[in-house]
Amino acid sequence: MRLTERLGIDVPIFAFSHCRDVVAAVTNAGGFGVLGAVAYSAEQLDTELSWLDRETGGRPYGVDVLVPGKLDARGVRVADLIPEEHRAFLDTLFSKYGMAPPSRATGSQAGSAADDVARRVTASGATGLIEVALKHRIGLIASALGPPPPEMVALAREADVPVAALVGTVEHALRQREAGADIIVAQGTEAGGHTGEISTMVLVPQVVDAVAPIPVLAAGGIASGRQMAAAIALGAQGVWCGSVWLTTEEAETPQAVKRKFLAASSLDTVRSRSRTGKPARQLSSAWTREWDGENSPGPLGMPLQMLLAEGAMATIGPAAERGEPGAVELANYFVGQVVGQLDQVKPAKQVVYEMISEYAEAVERLAP
Amino acid sequence: MRLTERLGIDVPIFAFSHCRDVVAAVTNAGGFGVLGAVAYSAEQLDTELSWLDRETGGRPYGVDVLVPGKLDARGVRVADLIPEEHRAFLDTLFSKYGMAPPSRATGSQAGSAADDVARRVTASGATGLIEVALKHRIGLIASALGPPPPEMVALAREADVPVAALVGTVEHALRQREAGADIIVAQGTEAGGHTGEISTMVLVPQVVDAVAPIPVLAAGGIASGRQMAAAIALGAQGVWCGSVWLTTEEAETPQAVKRKFLAASSLDTVRSRSRTGKPARQLSSAWTREWDGENSPGPLGMPLQMLLAEGAMATIGPAAERGEPGAVELANYFVGQVVGQLDQVKPAKQVVYEMISEYAEAVERLAP
Repeated sequence: MRLTERLGIDVPIFAFSHCRDVVAAVTNAGGFGVLGAVAYSAEQLDTELSWLDRETGGRPYGVDVLVPGKLDARGVRVADLIPEEHRAFLDTLFSKYGMAPPSRATGSQAGSAADDVARRVTASGATGLIEVALKHRIGLIASALGPPPPEMVALAREADVPVAALVGTVEHALRQREAGADIIVAQGTEAGGHTGEISTMVLVPQVVDAVAPIPVLAAGGIASGRQMAAAIALGAQGVWCGSVWLTTEEAETPQAVKRKFLAASSLDTVRSRSRTGKPARQLSSAWTREWDGENSPGPLGMPLQMLLAEGAMATIGPAAERGEPGAVELANYFVGQVVGQLDQVKPAKQVVYEMISEYAEAVERLAP
Repeated sequence: MRLTERLGIDVPIFAFSHCRDVVAAVTNAGGFGVLGAVAYSAEQLDTELSWLDRETGGRPYGVDVLVPGKLDARGVRVADLIPEEHRAFLDTLFSKYGMAPPSRATGSQAGSAADDVARRVTASGATGLIEVALKHRIGLIASALGPPPPEMVALAREADVPVAALVGTVEHALRQREAGADIIVAQGTEAGGHTGEISTMVLVPQVVDAVAPIPVLAAGGIASGRQMAAAIALGAQGVWCGSVWLTTEEAETPQAVKRKFLAASSLDTVRSRSRTGKPARQLSSAWTREWDGENSPGPLGMPLQMLLAEGAMATIGPAAERGEPGAVELANYFVGQVVGQLDQVKPAKQVVYEMISEYAEAVERLAP
């Protein structure tokens, strides 16, 4: 059975977004919205999904969790694990870019925000989010890093919800199949966020052949109907897009970052460990240049660098919104090389319809 | 007019190769072979092209030159410009990998081979090769680095031979159009050889839109019919392939390197300055790891690093062929990420036919 039939959707366009409005808009346009859950506590996620249940009126949507799973944060104040050298570098950075030093006081907002994030990116935290998600009418659970843990697969199986898993190599794809993934998302190096080194063009056919008959979605470099047609030609059954929604009307991308995205070329991204500790493609900014530069102590691992970065960005973001020039220089966000194509703010629904229409044209051009 | 009609070919598969047998085989299979001329002196090129004229019996083929053009080598012994520090590092490298030290004597074979190469990669050298090429029935001149110099375009125009130019960014594409290129080859970062940072999936549609109505070929990540269909879906009028020919029966790829290619995965390439001085994707080997490693003085610029590397490879290649383990570790060659797909030696003609057949299947799958 084709994936669209199996999931009950009109078009195989999967929209990964941290913004519920984007998820609802794509699902309601006939695609499949997937909410990135890492930004939410269990309670917040429950609220968001109740909203989505109402807004999508029975159409399917999914939830994406991050399971790096090395560090179990229960009972530990993770923020305390960040070395003084890295805190000092952050202080220097804030000072160099004309910002007030980041707060370090015990129980500070940034500190506890970091602890919250830390709890959610551990295996136990992710499972908690999944338990919440399964109380709602979700149609897919996606695991963005590493094989889904057995308890996650078991819970999903019991609820008859398919599990999708993102991979950057054939080896990872085979491991994900082993772990019980029902759908593989083959994500090329051009993608935003955590990404490997192999391009979508090269990766997708290899993964399709390796895991057949498991359906494969293509991710990375896909933000238009021509790119969607290319992905299908490579053997994918659909496309998994993230970056293209970041400049939609619905996206909650901070305005300062949205403006940078709209102005950026495809050369303005970098695969850097500076935001999470693992290589993740993002807009290059003073943040990535300084952390990857000569005077840097080097990014920490995952999840410590993520805690440090999220804490800092919680200050940088609002300062950039207020127009503070140093903060604007530092501000960035995960985005793929397709950022060079994004030069207009549009409703998410329009993005879906334009992709479908351009896809049809591309297919017609290919017809013999 | 479609490019295939304009160039008088059956299928828009362009084969870049340094091996005349591959060029002839692809042209005779209905594609378009393009001979990389940088390895030849003017006299050798004349001989190769006379052979191609006979073998292809009136079917079109082309010639590719490298025009980095910063250093004019006339009257200079270029090998003398290589710093002692880099020669010393090379000595250490040879010793570490159990090889006899590279010869440095005045008038040594490696030295004069380097001088020969140097002469050919300058603007005057490239023009000399083009003058030779235009005495033959060539159907295309391609410029692999930088905009074609005005004299090259003028010579080609006079002979009514179209000029193709390789680009890795939209900006370069616009510059190439300005310089008079008739065909743009948009080459993604996954390609072998000199390549930029943007993936084929992202680059091709941007270049197609930027230079329309100039026809665009897609390069990088294309070694199968599915990938060819994807390239056409992206808006390209054809595909420019290099890596896929390196493991064909006809290819003169040294056996030691061919074996490494057949065994390699798509993770086994690296974009490194260690072979030419400019970032070029190649098989990772002890050569790339050492030059890009901590104890390295860092690669020189183009063309000095190319001279140093070509001189060294002239010794490493034969030693690897003799099975010397250190030489086998060092040996490498330019290749794209598609190397992970190449696991069988086939005749070049069969590669063309399989691409065409898989292309047709992919198009059929896309049909509504």
